[in-house]
Amino acid sequence: MKFLTFGEVMLRLKAPGHERFFQSPTLEASFGGGEANVAVSLANYGMDAAFLTVLPENDIARACVRELRGFNVDTACIQYGPGRMGVYYLESGANQLPSKVVYDREYSALSLARPGTVDWGRAFAGVDWFHITGITPAISPGARDLSIEALREAGRRGITVSCDLNYRKNLWNYGQKACEVMGEMAEYVDVAIANEEDVQKALGITSDVAVESGELDREKYRILGNKVLARYPNMKMIAITLRESRSADTNGWAACLNDRERFYESKRYLITDIIDRVGGGDSFSGGLIYGLNTYPDRQQALEFAAAASCLKHSVMGDFNRVGVSDVERLMRGDGSGRVQR
Amino acid sequence: MKFLTFGEVMLRLKAPGHERFFQSPTLEASFGGGEANVAVSLANYGMDAAFLTVLPENDIARACVRELRGFNVDTACIQYGPGRMGVYYLESGANQLPSKVVYDREYSALSLARPGTVDWGRAFAGVDWFHITGITPAISPGARDLSIEALREAGRRGITVSCDLNYRKNLWNYGQKACEVMGEMAEYVDVAIANEEDVQKALGITSDVAVESGELDREKYRILGNKVLARYPNMKMIAITLRESRSADTNGWAACLNDRERFYESKRYLITDIIDRVGGGDSFSGGLIYGLNTYPDRQQALEFAAAASCLKHSVMGDFNRVGVSDVERLMRGDGSGRVQR
Amino acid sequence: MKFLTFGEVMLRLKAPGHERFFQSPTLEASFGGGEANVAVSLANYGMDAAFLTVLPENDIARACVRELRGFNVDTACIQYGPGRMGVYYLESGANQLPSKVVYDREYSALSLARPGTVDWGRAFAGVDWFHITGITPAISPGARDLSIEALREAGRRGITVSCDLNYRKNLWNYGQKACEVMGEMAEYVDVAIANEEDVQKALGITSDVAVESGELDREKYRILGNKVLARYPNMKMIAITLRESRSADTNGWAACLNDRERFYESKRYLITDIIDRVGGGDSFSGGLIYGLNTYPDRQQALEFAAAASCLKHSVMGDFNRVGVSDVERLMRGDGSGRVQR
Amino acid sequence: MKFLTFGEVMLRLKAPGHERFFQSPTLEASFGGGEANVAVSLANYGMDAAFLTVLPENDIARACVRELRGFNVDTACIQYGPGRMGVYYLESGANQLPSKVVYDREYSALSLARPGTVDWGRAFAGVDWFHITGITPAISPGARDLSIEALREAGRRGITVSCDLNYRKNLWNYGQKACEVMGEMAEYVDVAIANEEDVQKALGITSDVAVESGELDREKYRILGNKVLARYPNMKMIAITLRESRSADTNGWAACLNDRERFYESKRYLITDIIDRVGGGDSFSGGLIYGLNTYPDRQQALEFAAAASCLKHSVMGDFNRVGVSDVERLMRGDGSGRVQR
Amino acid sequence: MKFLTFGEVMLRLKAPGHERFFQSPTLEASFGGGEANVAVSLANYGMDAAFLTVLPENDIARACVRELRGFNVDTACIQYGPGRMGVYYLESGANQLPSKVVYDREYSALSLARPGTVDWGRAFAGVDWFHITGITPAISPGARDLSIEALREAGRRGITVSCDLNYRKNLWNYGQKACEVMGEMAEYVDVAIANEEDVQKALGITSDVAVESGELDREKYRILGNKVLARYPNMKMIAITLRESRSADTNGWAACLNDRERFYESKRYLITDIIDRVGGGDSFSGGLIYGLNTYPDRQQALEFAAAASCLKHSVMGDFNRVGVSDVERLMRGDGSGRVQR
Amino acid sequence: MKFLTFGEVMLRLKAPGHERFFQSPTLEASFGGGEANVAVSLANYGMDAAFLTVLPENDIARACVRELRGFNVDTACIQYGPGRMGVYYLESGANQLPSKVVYDREYSALSLARPGTVDWGRAFAGVDWFHITGITPAISPGARDLSIEALREAGRRGITVSCDLNYRKNLWNYGQKACEVMGEMAEYVDVAIANEEDVQKALGITSDVAVESGELDREKYRILGNKVLARYPNMKMIAITLRESRSADTNGWAACLNDRERFYESKRYLITDIIDRVGGGDSFSGGLIYGLNTYPDRQQALEFAAAASCLKHSVMGDFNRVGVSDVERLMRGDGSGRVQR
Repeated sequence: MKFLTFGEVMLRLKAPGHERFFQSPTLEASFGGGEANVAVSLANYGMDAAFLTVLPENDIARACVRELRGFNVDTACIQYGPGRMGVYYLESGANQLPSKVVYDREYSALSLARPGTVDWGRAFAGVDWFHITGITPAISPGARDLSIEALREAGRRGITVSCDLNYRKNLWNYGQKACEVMGEMAEYVDVAIANEEDVQKALGITSDVAVESGELDREKYRILGNKVLARYPNMKMIAITLRESRSADTNGWAACLNDRERFYESKRYLITDIIDRVGGGDSFSGGLIYGLNTYPDRQQALEFAAAASCLKHSVMGDFNRVGVSDVERLMRGDGSGRVQR
Repeated sequence: MKFLTFGEVMLRLKAPGHERFFQSPTLEASFGGGEANVAVSLANYGMDAAFLTVLPENDIARACVRELRGFNVDTACIQYGPGRMGVYYLESGANQLPSKVVYDREYSALSLARPGTVDWGRAFAGVDWFHITGITPAISPGARDLSIEALREAGRRGITVSCDLNYRKNLWNYGQKACEVMGEMAEYVDVAIANEEDVQKALGITSDVAVESGELDREKYRILGNKVLARYPNMKMIAITLRESRSADTNGWAACLNDRERFYESKRYLITDIIDRVGGGDSFSGGLIYGLNTYPDRQQALEFAAAASCLKHSVMGDFNRVGVSDVERLMRGDGSGRVQR
Repeated sequence: MKFLTFGEVMLRLKAPGHERFFQSPTLEASFGGGEANVAVSLANYGMDAAFLTVLPENDIARACVRELRGFNVDTACIQYGPGRMGVYYLESGANQLPSKVVYDREYSALSLARPGTVDWGRAFAGVDWFHITGITPAISPGARDLSIEALREAGRRGITVSCDLNYRKNLWNYGQKACEVMGEMAEYVDVAIANEEDVQKALGITSDVAVESGELDREKYRILGNKVLARYPNMKMIAITLRESRSADTNGWAACLNDRERFYESKRYLITDIIDRVGGGDSFSGGLIYGLNTYPDRQQALEFAAAASCLKHSVMGDFNRVGVSDVERLMRGDGSGRVQR
Repeated sequence: MKFLTFGEVMLRLKAPGHERFFQSPTLEASFGGGEANVAVSLANYGMDAAFLTVLPENDIARACVRELRGFNVDTACIQYGPGRMGVYYLESGANQLPSKVVYDREYSALSLARPGTVDWGRAFAGVDWFHITGITPAISPGARDLSIEALREAGRRGITVSCDLNYRKNLWNYGQKACEVMGEMAEYVDVAIANEEDVQKALGITSDVAVESGELDREKYRILGNKVLARYPNMKMIAITLRESRSADTNGWAACLNDRERFYESKRYLITDIIDRVGGGDSFSGGLIYGLNTYPDRQQALEFAAAASCLKHSVMGDFNRVGVSDVERLMRGDGSGRVQR
Repeated sequence: MKFLTFGEVMLRLKAPGHERFFQSPTLEASFGGGEANVAVSLANYGMDAAFLTVLPENDIARACVRELRGFNVDTACIQYGPGRMGVYYLESGANQLPSKVVYDREYSALSLARPGTVDWGRAFAGVDWFHITGITPAISPGARDLSIEALREAGRRGITVSCDLNYRKNLWNYGQKACEVMGEMAEYVDVAIANEEDVQKALGITSDVAVESGELDREKYRILGNKVLARYPNMKMIAITLRESRSADTNGWAACLNDRERFYESKRYLITDIIDRVGGGDSFSGGLIYGLNTYPDRQQALEFAAAASCLKHSVMGDFNRVGVSDVERLMRGDGSGRVQR
Repeated sequence: MKFLTFGEVMLRLKAPGHERFFQSPTLEASFGGGEANVAVSLANYGMDAAFLTVLPENDIARACVRELRGFNVDTACIQYGPGRMGVYYLESGANQLPSKVVYDREYSALSLARPGTVDWGRAFAGVDWFHITGITPAISPGARDLSIEALREAGRRGITVSCDLNYRKNLWNYGQKACEVMGEMAEYVDVAIANEEDVQKALGITSDVAVESGELDREKYRILGNKVLARYPNMKMIAITLRESRSADTNGWAACLNDRERFYESKRYLITDIIDRVGGGDSFSGGLIYGLNTYPDRQQALEFAAAASCLKHSVMGDFNRVGVSDVERLMRGDGSGRVQR
């Protein structure tokens, strides 16, 4: 079974440790981006995963491809074109001081791409599952058109589609509202992934769940999922992640899954010493896709996704550098952190 | 409105991460010192802040001035004279293991300075607010005389004076008791800042508040403030910080302000993953001076100071590298640490 | 009074910070191993401590000896012989993600050593106390024979023997069961040190205490100690450490001591921000040996050991880089982590 | 006397040491750009130097301004506007392997600026000397127009203008030839600075001097200068730098100056262990401007410039972190590198 | 065209910069080994390159495979088996102080492998060229037998064989002489690669060329090549590298090729600031294999190999991180090290 | 045979790599000082070496002692007293830019010590050779008196005395001229070590040898030595080092020895890529003392000293981390820098 994810991958430049920007003249450089993160998760779990994006032809982009390939992500269908490689700067918060992201992703090669850039026949060859997020259509009209083209092409080929709605308020600035575009995209989606805010902002479906409070109300989440599934009859299921942000270090984490037939809730995790929460949502998507394609029952799939993304919070960088055995140990209830010798 | 702070700035040499001294042959080098820290805070909040000290003429001192100037602190009135640049070595504790400071500040240029070293006319030109601490008079008889000279000169010019009483038991070793000197200095102070121990040791005013227990008793703090204000009729107000030291990582933090008319209490903050608590008190002073000169009501001024110093515990180094928007976000109640994108 | 510890010391290669292996092309290199760790603890407390091992003659082993000698450990009786220096790779976990150790210690010089390698007359000259662990006999038949030879030689000389039973399931793979060997060794031991699992696996003495639950039941530990002491009439006492592993960052820590006459329990410590727990048990052994030889009563000896090992969790590396004053401060109840200036 | 330089400042991201890009996941982050480099040189020599550019309002740009201000560069007239902060990636070569620069400077705030963006009255207030380079007009039509506007405004105010012709072949890609634009700009220039290739490519004035050979032929350089001065009667003088690139580590370095009356040649320096040659030309400009405004005779001015830029090759980063005494020591002939104690 | 290289890959642990072992508690960790280095070179030049070895199943070996895969080396045929991953420690010399390698490669998985471990049908599927070195047969009798088995299997399949004779005196210690084994292996070799010492020690063919003097005598090298080719009629050609070691920093480098018909000599390179010479010979092999399969004439092939290996001396690590364009630039004569912008 | 060296050891704080001070907020921290450096050299060569100094009781001084003890230097006679630990800051030059040392050694514990501080009976117990330098008497009148006391005590015991004259112009500032003090000290010296400037400035014996030119004139050095030996009949020999400083990276290095009977000259070394030349002279002293006590003839002793100090230039830090085999390899003429495997 082959998986393809499509989106932007950026150079990630992080201030060292808990330093604020340029406290030292050093930046920790790695790569990341929602869809690439999902591809790496899948490859780490042993799946046949490919990643599609558009990159400029320079040494920075080549290093990114080298990194992805090292993780066993198939990079053969990556396109090269005019434009830059997006960059994001990251500063790690602690306690009441939030982490901070400064984006420098405008004019990226993907944002300058247009429908027709990608040879979908080649990209989708042998692909069974396609994953996309709400970030890509937000970066430019061209990327939006390309996203919709991708979904149509996937649909035409009967490929299963998962989509992390992923609403980013600062990106939607080319003159169209998120919910106009995401609403259209949602019509192609089999498996939707979102948090409560994404549903509201990306699909315009309101809920009474208070985001800031962090208090989880299962019933509300069930109803919210039902609303989405009612609006999009094509969707087979929607998974909603529940982050309770107590501080930059301490988050509660859980998720639920509504597959029209049942409402599944995962275990709740309390993470008290977050190493890096960027990519936490992507690690959930990666875990869910793996789980749905591996475990016979959906409760297990959801638990795998929740445990995988719980562990991501203990891993530095966008990529979730854990394996199936790490996740399954936690799924089985062993979160004791005893040294593995 | 122009602010001047006066005191010693030192080279700060910290063992990396949580390492103990010389576990690696590397020291993290920055600069700091109570009054310089206050100047940097004020400059970070957009105020016109100057810093006065005496430094030797060498490359290390010049680097310190470059750093301060980068923060937009006016360094034009810094004096150069014989003596060294003080150094302090720092090792970061964790859990039950305390952080450790080894001072090497004897024979500093400031400690060798004498009244007459500073051209007060130039230093105080245009200055509206003067800040000093109980550290400077403790380092040498010369620095003591210079401190008192500064206060007299400020008084003569009608400049508002704030003073962080800051009692350091290991410094007062030139033969005079802290309370003799600080008692005299207190007579020039408009805004006193202290913790409970400072009041007791620097002013000799006792209290029944148990320092070690960390249990806060508002009434006691109100009474303690009243005692100080009664003794020093010149003082317009006294702010007292309340640190509850649970471990090297976890501290409770709050403050109160007694302005003779009202007793204000700040929110209480729990900081569970302290990055660096050195400079925490100074960040309170900086925040309070900013707040008193910015907000119409004193509750807000106190809240700004408490929030600013709460955030300092998440910033590495003596300097509080946060801005007004960071502090106001926390004042408004958002300590959720959600990533700022 | 002179102390000798005997066992393997390895090169320890740790991924930086909380990174997973080879996330950066850098490894933090230090040295460690149960018995060397105990020798360093004793030397740090001012005791006359020597360490015996077998090392290859190369620059890596020489650097290890340099490091030990720096700590004032007497390295004069270290033997040099064929074989490698063992290596262990370490990755630091966080939250629910455990730390991970990858051993590369096969074919070490100690594992290739045989009885006759060591001149016990020279090694034991002037020695009053000998410490060994259950790790050494597990690494090879030769090391097992050498361990038993050492115990016999110590016994012949009337040297007090302490032994940390230290069961490591992955090591016992040369065809003999741990309890066969450890049972024989235990007959020479005056002071046994163990956790509940060690007693069970190394001595085959079962208990009803649930290891994973972390719930401590004093009565059970008293009974477990009694069982061991009953089986081994030579043993004067047994100390049992109680680790409650809540996560990779947060552990409860306590210990008890059964000297046939009384059952002592230490204070319980909660460590919420573990820096490095490798070597935690060894720091307990080092503290206990120091305590038994320093304090008139055993409660104090046990409290010293528990406090010392509590502090080890805040120190990076195998070695417990704390001194008597650090430990005694915590013993006296000051775990507030207030900055020591 | 006040100096203003105008141009783009970028984030400089260098692979550590001699590593190739992303050999380690770390980048050394500093700031640089031709005209900012000149301003820093001037400030380091004690001159009153200001820098004008257009930057986006984000933390990265603010850190850049902090750095410049630390060097005592007046940053008050920096404009903030839409667009990015340019980035350049640098990899240090050695021997026959060249250093490599990857630019990511498109869509920078300066490149998006247009005439009218800058309040020249304010920028030029009190300014006596204005410095610009051939890089700025190359980055976009807007920056070109702004450059010419700047020169006109400077001319109108009788401000002396220096210009480093600085031809960069990869920048001139918006459809106009360098020599069209630079030819126009040259009409405003009092002091031209160039290497042989710049003269040829930026002004279209040919020479028989073989660039690649590195062999210097003074007579040819004199004639080349004469040709330029003949074409531009406004020019008071032209300085030409002569780099003989033997390898990435070893360069010959010298310069000549033609002021219509005399032809001056500097000492020739051989630099065999280059630390960083980026910014070498800018350090020459900075040194020449300082020299022309400080020394009574032009030979000395040229020698200062040549020595200053020789020293730059031993300093990491774009900025020439040396002082007047360092340069004058070398001017006096002491290049022995004896330790200064 | 597909290439396969076979041999041992080790963890390489280097002291930072020019530090001696454990001057800092840090090691720079990468991977390397003669045959893996050749595979990386080929992949960097765009060839379809695979690497065969035997590794243990642990995280360190997995990281090595990830690194190789990132370079686009096909790692699919790597075998996993009992034993360790070899390690080598490296300290960088300078001037008269040599670099130092400490090997810890005994009991590696490859050294414990035996004929029958590798499924040659699968390993050689589609392979056109096979590369091996004199290191592998030196590490153990099993590795020797496996090497000869590999050569026989390659021969049976008509695969072209290249072999770097690579004599390592410290490895041949299992009781057989290098020339007995290498003599047998040489009978399968089409393209031999060696330096003068290798020919002498590995094949027992003497020469009058003085190794230490570094003075090159072409005629002697021609004759030496002829002797080898006369002894081994199967060999189509032999390339000999000529290193003139003036100091740890400065080496002369050149090579010659004798293809029975002609004697080709490469340009001579002087490298005065060596960054890392480990892997220099392997980069020659990689360059030669690429060159012979790419350029129509052998002079060019030899020049590519010489230029590639010259550039390797400017790259840190075993792997030659340069591309075809870098090498061809130097082949064309541009070793000026001018910054590539 | 036991050796004792006496003098000041300082904390050495070096800017990383070739950075200028505070270009990064990091300092490389090690320890060093002329006489400690000699003790480490001797211990590295396997000699029984002790070091005497006065240190404050703090963690920094303790780390220094730990480092020295690791090198097997006997630190038992180190005294603890009031005062600081001296610090020196170091910035590494390159090419024409000199390295720079900023001293912060005033008020050190040694400078505050007085005759009577040291129990010479204990310090000199078993000592055969005593080494001192011209630095110690320069730091304070107390240290001067202590130095002379030491020499008298050594003389009384018939201990051989070596002295590196080591003139430091910036230290002699307490009101006495170097040559007054050093002249007195020279009367106790058996083996004098100096460079040409030391002889002139410390002993007031002039020479016609041009220091700056670097051109060596053997005859002049022979005569200079003769002059010194004529003035001090107690001296058995004088060794003079000849440094030819071509640049911060490239130095010529040689030495001569005049033992009244013969004039020996060492090989001349050219060092083209200096890693660290601080401690170069001390490594000569260490090598000479070793050589004179090891080799039967003085030419060999001198060659050992010259080769040892040549190698020091390739080692980072004050301490010469090379062994006898490293030095003897170079003595035998192998400076080829070939990798030692």
